[in-house]
Amino acid sequence: MPAKILFLNGSNLNMLGVREPHIYGHDTLADIDKRLQARATALGLAVEMHQSNHEGDLVTMIQEARTTCVGIVINPAAYTHTSVAVLDALLMCDFPVIELHLSNPHRRDAFRHHSFVSQAAKGIICGFGAHGYELALEAMAKLVTK
Amino acid sequence: MPAKILFLNGSNLNMLGVREPHIYGHDTLADIDKRLQARATALGLAVEMHQSNHEGDLVTMIQEARTTCVGIVINPAAYTHTSVAVLDALLMCDFPVIELHLSNPHRRDAFRHHSFVSQAAKGIICGFGAHGYELALEAMAKLVTK
Amino acid sequence: MPAKILFLNGSNLNMLGVREPHIYGHDTLADIDKRLQARATALGLAVEMHQSNHEGDLVTMIQEARTTCVGIVINPAAYTHTSVAVLDALLMCDFPVIELHLSNPHRRDAFRHHSFVSQAAKGIICGFGAHGYELALEAMAKLVTK
Amino acid sequence: MPAKILFLNGSNLNMLGVREPHIYGHDTLADIDKRLQARATALGLAVEMHQSNHEGDLVTMIQEARTTCVGIVINPAAYTHTSVAVLDALLMCDFPVIELHLSNPHRRDAFRHHSFVSQAAKGIICGFGAHGYELALEAMAKLVTK
Amino acid sequence: MPAKILFLNGSNLNMLGVREPHIYGHDTLADIDKRLQARATALGLAVEMHQSNHEGDLVTMIQEARTTCVGIVINPAAYTHTSVAVLDALLMCDFPVIELHLSNPHRRDAFRHHSFVSQAAKGIICGFGAHGYELALEAMAKLVTK
Amino acid sequence: MPAKILFLNGSNLNMLGVREPHIYGHDTLADIDKRLQARATALGLAVEMHQSNHEGDLVTMIQEARTTCVGIVINPAAYTHTSVAVLDALLMCDFPVIELHLSNPHRRDAFRHHSFVSQAAKGIICGFGAHGYELALEAMAKLVTK
Amino acid sequence: MPAKILFLNGSNLNMLGVREPHIYGHDTLADIDKRLQARATALGLAVEMHQSNHEGDLVTMIQEARTTCVGIVINPAAYTHTSVAVLDALLMCDFPVIELHLSNPHRRDAFRHHSFVSQAAKGIICGFGAHGYELALEAMAKLVTK
Amino acid sequence: MPAKILFLNGSNLNMLGVREPHIYGHDTLADIDKRLQARATALGLAVEMHQSNHEGDLVTMIQEARTTCVGIVINPAAYTHTSVAVLDALLMCDFPVIELHLSNPHRRDAFRHHSFVSQAAKGIICGFGAHGYELALEAMAKLVTK
Amino acid sequence: MPAKILFLNGSNLNMLGVREPHIYGHDTLADIDKRLQARATALGLAVEMHQSNHEGDLVTMIQEARTTCVGIVINPAAYTHTSVAVLDALLMCDFPVIELHLSNPHRRDAFRHHSFVSQAAKGIICGFGAHGYELALEAMAKLVTK
Amino acid sequence: MPAKILFLNGSNLNMLGVREPHIYGHDTLADIDKRLQARATALGLAVEMHQSNHEGDLVTMIQEARTTCVGIVINPAAYTHTSVAVLDALLMCDFPVIELHLSNPHRRDAFRHHSFVSQAAKGIICGFGAHGYELALEAMAKLVTK
Amino acid sequence: MPAKILFLNGSNLNMLGVREPHIYGHDTLADIDKRLQARATALGLAVEMHQSNHEGDLVTMIQEARTTCVGIVINPAAYTHTSVAVLDALLMCDFPVIELHLSNPHRRDAFRHHSFVSQAAKGIICGFGAHGYELALEAMAKLVTK
Amino acid sequence: MPAKILFLNGSNLNMLGVREPHIYGHDTLADIDKRLQARATALGLAVEMHQSNHEGDLVTMIQEARTTCVGIVINPAAYTHTSVAVLDALLMCDFPVIELHLSNPHRRDAFRHHSFVSQAAKGIICGFGAHGYELALEAMAKLVTK
Repeated sequence: MPAKILFLNGSNLNMLGVREPHIYGHDTLADIDKRLQARATALGLAVEMHQSNHEGDLVTMIQEARTTCVGIVINPAAYTHTSVAVLDALLMCDFPVIELHLSNPHRRDAFRHHSFVSQAAKGIICGFGAHGYELALEAMAKLVTK
Repeated sequence: MPAKILFLNGSNLNMLGVREPHIYGHDTLADIDKRLQARATALGLAVEMHQSNHEGDLVTMIQEARTTCVGIVINPAAYTHTSVAVLDALLMCDFPVIELHLSNPHRRDAFRHHSFVSQAAKGIICGFGAHGYELALEAMAKLVTK
Repeated sequence: MPAKILFLNGSNLNMLGVREPHIYGHDTLADIDKRLQARATALGLAVEMHQSNHEGDLVTMIQEARTTCVGIVINPAAYTHTSVAVLDALLMCDFPVIELHLSNPHRRDAFRHHSFVSQAAKGIICGFGAHGYELALEAMAKLVTK
Repeated sequence: MPAKILFLNGSNLNMLGVREPHIYGHDTLADIDKRLQARATALGLAVEMHQSNHEGDLVTMIQEARTTCVGIVINPAAYTHTSVAVLDALLMCDFPVIELHLSNPHRRDAFRHHSFVSQAAKGIICGFGAHGYELALEAMAKLVTK
Repeated sequence: MPAKILFLNGSNLNMLGVREPHIYGHDTLADIDKRLQARATALGLAVEMHQSNHEGDLVTMIQEARTTCVGIVINPAAYTHTSVAVLDALLMCDFPVIELHLSNPHRRDAFRHHSFVSQAAKGIICGFGAHGYELALEAMAKLVTK
Repeated sequence: MPAKILFLNGSNLNMLGVREPHIYGHDTLADIDKRLQARATALGLAVEMHQSNHEGDLVTMIQEARTTCVGIVINPAAYTHTSVAVLDALLMCDFPVIELHLSNPHRRDAFRHHSFVSQAAKGIICGFGAHGYELALEAMAKLVTK
Repeated sequence: MPAKILFLNGSNLNMLGVREPHIYGHDTLADIDKRLQARATALGLAVEMHQSNHEGDLVTMIQEARTTCVGIVINPAAYTHTSVAVLDALLMCDFPVIELHLSNPHRRDAFRHHSFVSQAAKGIICGFGAHGYELALEAMAKLVTK
Repeated sequence: MPAKILFLNGSNLNMLGVREPHIYGHDTLADIDKRLQARATALGLAVEMHQSNHEGDLVTMIQEARTTCVGIVINPAAYTHTSVAVLDALLMCDFPVIELHLSNPHRRDAFRHHSFVSQAAKGIICGFGAHGYELALEAMAKLVTK
Repeated sequence: MPAKILFLNGSNLNMLGVREPHIYGHDTLADIDKRLQARATALGLAVEMHQSNHEGDLVTMIQEARTTCVGIVINPAAYTHTSVAVLDALLMCDFPVIELHLSNPHRRDAFRHHSFVSQAAKGIICGFGAHGYELALEAMAKLVTK
Repeated sequence: MPAKILFLNGSNLNMLGVREPHIYGHDTLADIDKRLQARATALGLAVEMHQSNHEGDLVTMIQEARTTCVGIVINPAAYTHTSVAVLDALLMCDFPVIELHLSNPHRRDAFRHHSFVSQAAKGIICGFGAHGYELALEAMAKLVTK
Repeated sequence: MPAKILFLNGSNLNMLGVREPHIYGHDTLADIDKRLQARATALGLAVEMHQSNHEGDLVTMIQEARTTCVGIVINPAAYTHTSVAVLDALLMCDFPVIELHLSNPHRRDAFRHHSFVSQAAKGIICGFGAHGYELALEAMAKLVTK
Repeated sequence: MPAKILFLNGSNLNMLGVREPHIYGHDTLADIDKRLQARATALGLAVEMHQSNHEGDLVTMIQEARTTCVGIVINPAAYTHTSVAVLDALLMCDFPVIELHLSNPHRRDAFRHHSFVSQAAKGIICGFGAHGYELALEAMAKLVTK
């Protein structure tokens, strides 16, 4: 059974592809997931994708991934800036964590410049839209196969 | 069918009318709801009222209101000061948002002076206790019928 | 003689309705005053409206209102952010004070996020344009007749 | 029926005894609960222990304790630093609240030095690992029997 | 003709003796002036006392005192904390300036801890109520007769 | 009739040429005005110069200039650092505003480093003493004749 | 000879039981000492209690304890917030240090929220009044017998 | 026996009159004491003057004054800015405390602008050199005989 | 001729592969360049790689790239945090800019958390060591071929 | 030989007239230089203009100007905000320094509000585009011929 | 009699050579003193060395040195960061003061980066362990023999 | 061949001995170098001295010293406060680094109190003028021969 990577999405990301598609594109998380599955297979990896608007759900899913996965790619959305609970859960993981953002938070409001999650992240990818998910998978593949 | 306004209440507001009634009054959310329904009918509007202690629930209810409502009046309580997730959900709404507080947060602790929600609010009403809900309905009626 | 409410307007509000009417509307303070008079009569109240560009005038008018009025609605404009003198005058009043703004200052420059006046205000209404004056009168009527 | 003390545990504390036992010890919350039950009986008190990764759950459990318990010992974990909602729920309680931490947060990251919960706490105990729970029970027994 | 000392009072001090006499005493500025005149005569000095709610008036009166007085005792009230214009006028004076406050501002709101006027003051007297005016006259007499 | 430029001077500038002439020069505002009139005529412009110690007067004069002038050169003196009211009045003007200072405020006290007025100014000239008025007229002439 | 624990008390704690007994209780340090001796004997430990108003004395007593004691419980009072010298002395100790406060400093002035001593403390106990001394002894007993 | 006022002097004030007499004057503390004794007798009061370079001594002397004196005039010198211990001792006193400084600290280094002692002071006198001691005695006489 | 991407490396990156190879790997910039050339060819792109320790050189090379390249990947190293000049040069570019770091700066010193360059960057990739260069090329290829 | 004024231009100013001419105008530094030469001749002065992207070059050119020039007009561009080296070089000059900016930095990003160079500047001119160079020459001529 | 240099050591330095000799070396203050005496003799100077844990003692010893010594080398240890009293005593000295630290405080906790003493020091030497005392003597010899 | 120490001098230090010799002395870097050479020979060391106004040159020279020298004494001048690039280069060195300043930066402008370089320095010497170079050589000799 191939090693599994958890792709975890925070608040409001269930709206991806629905809201303002002319800006954020028409890709939904399901569309992205489909592309990730294909690429993961080619890389000999498995991918599982989840989304929740609840900080507590993100914490629980990270805890569970500790024994079932070999890496986490997390797009924490708003929880990037406010959740110590998500940070603490990620700090318990012994495998690589990649932080992912659709846009570049450093060009948005000042309160979006600080990320709690960054303190637990091996690497960060931001600003490439939906393509960032695929870049993160490539980066993770390299990390977990070293 | 009349256009609908969502009245959304954050953490601990389920205790309204129960806790310290000599200070906050004996009105529960249900009592307030009853008065709002009457006034809404007179204004040719519908009102739906919800409360949750969960940040994630507030986010989900705001997302759902995007297609079913024409305005949101939100009393985010504690999440006023800590929730970027609620802010992000409100920023996705194309209709007016009114921020509501029972008391005037600027006369309380310093950490209550900052509101994330204000950045997505068309207008703010605070300090008028339960009467604020009715003022917000009047204000919203004006905004959505312009 | 009905109880009187002072509506006090700070710097530059004499330009209301004159400057950028496509944004701020065509209502002048005189127009607003006319509507307030009508509504006040219905509520059994009297309304008096003043404006000044002088911080000192605002202070003096607040002092005089202490014995002639039962409430003050103040739109301090720029003095919101800079006047301790206005705050001190308001702190001497034993009746309710309502702070009013045409727009939502929390979506403007950072220096507009702080209000000295809020520390003396029972309630705050902002972001509803000229309609805010009427909402403030409704709110005040409730406060002074309780 | 003996008076009841609620022991409430925040995010990630379900991992206690599982994660890095060489550092945090092999005690799980269940092990600690067992010892607390024994000591509570001796003190003529009852103890109930809960954990949740959800901020909203902590709020709800605090609200319920208001009428069923005589004190709360809370280890809010990450929510110590980010939850105004938990603080507000605790502020509604008329009985003593004790804040508890396994380690000393003041020797960790700067953002862990600030606690919202401390503003509602009668007393604070931190840095004694699992033994802190028993110390908190002793402290609470003294407070509720005075 | 005896040398003259200007006693200058800022915003809201015209209310002295009128507002909350049980706290601030029944002394009005006129009462204080009468006592100062008596004491000034004994000291071989003249005293002139003014008050204004207008920052600009304070500036103008300070400018005029430059050629007619030998010292200024100023109780700037709210303008203590906000007026660079008053500071600049005082900085033009070649004679001693004494800053006077009825209460101790350092035990009030944080924004009252900073005084622009202090930068131009030879000495400061605060917290002694109406008696402070007489202490300031004694202090000034010593300064101008050295 | 030539287009008119308003030269507006804030608090204490009526003392120019009177106070410390060995430092600030013997030029009074009247002297400067005379030179400006001559140069304005040569440039086909009119100049009107005013001074006030009152923030409110500055606001009113700016408002009036909106319909009678084509540009404002303002030396706000102390109000540079404290007046949002002056800033707001300037923001209403559709023509160029030039901020002028006799000395370089960045080499003086820290509180003089911040200018509210700069946010409404097209250009800034400071540190050239009385000559700055003439430079400002040259600069304004270029701006209004482009 | 039983292992010895030093209980060290900082400035003004010699007034305990003397000042405002209706608030702080009638227990003096001597009373507390008596109870600690009894409990220490039961735990097979010795306790020595000292107090000083001098920062330098606290430093010297900590230095001496390094070779004569196995643990320090310190209630540094005001020196909590200002003494790097006490911190440095504690940092030289190889045994556990417990920081103790009668009240919860986080509910007092902002400058009492920061503790230099916390950086050298294994654990902290605050808010339990005189009972805190006994809790600290229990906690220390556990630490030194592990 | 007349009521006694303690005049307490902090660090380095034993050098008064010795160091830079051309600036600070030739008055030593002994000279000042002599003048105070004379004036105190006239006022029906006793005065006792002490100085110490030790923070702990100041604390102890304040504690002792609680039962032997009716007021304290304190010139804390450097301990103004650094001593919470002195503040705490003063906060225990039920009689008036006057804070005294030879010069005006607000015209010196920024770190001298903050005073812990001010939070316990009824009144403050600064900037009048040795004469300030006599002004403080006058002010204290008024306070303790009211 | 294929479109060209400039890979620009800031201060000290000439030491890559030389310094601490057990940590940063044995890859030199030349090694990385070789891999980038291969991948660029496959993508139908050209790559040019430069390094300089001089801020001014980086500015000049960015200026030149404006007309010769279609994108810049920049690893500014220390200049990330200190160079407004590099930011200004990048802001002049109409094509995509990607900011690249070998490690995750948010887990290093606080002064490394702020990046001037981020304000001009479309996307950011950090923490993946030498592999980040290849990820950046993939990301850039997607951006310039859209 | 006429006295010489150095006009020194910092990073990216070699792009003037090339980049976004519809905003910044079509004037290059060479065009500006030509106009300055003409005006300098009329004023009996010589002008020399240089530009560099290198902070170190600016430093060296300022050093050399100390013995060859009678004044410096410097447009430091990005180095305005980051270069202490340029400031230190300017502080060594005994002749007047004028700081020049094409736009008004106070209406741009917050980090552009602080200028190190201002501390060495006699005067500042900003916001007048290319015309600012001519104004600076006029201002300098006045300064060096006084 | 040779001119005398006072070497003054603050809190905890009596532990030098005792605590962690593998890190700080085996040199005690006595050992260092012996070497200083030898070198002082060669330089034609006398050295006197003292240590105290009491801030007040340091103040008194500095005062006494004013008339008996020609220079002070002070290693204030913890009082570096907290003592205005020591600073004030040093400011009274007309001879050179050298500040000395065993380690480099700028590589330790942030609160150790600020030194009150530096404001009175001619020179600073830190980071060279016990050797720093000898370097300080060399530096002082140069200063006092110039 | 004796071990070599690099003495590296930053911006504007080429002016040493030229600018204001009455303050900074007549010693040029060449004069200092000559004395260092003599002393180095006596110590069995070699010394090489360089200066540059370019941050990038300093970086490059530090990189080269890594393999040719056994220690660096650096007087970074302005780059002390602004250069992360110099810090990063120094952090790569495995031998001792000494930071040197002619004057004591802590008695100059606030922005000169922070040094990036200090984080890489073993020791710091400042305030002794040209003599500091010789002290640094003595200190370095001790460090490299231990």
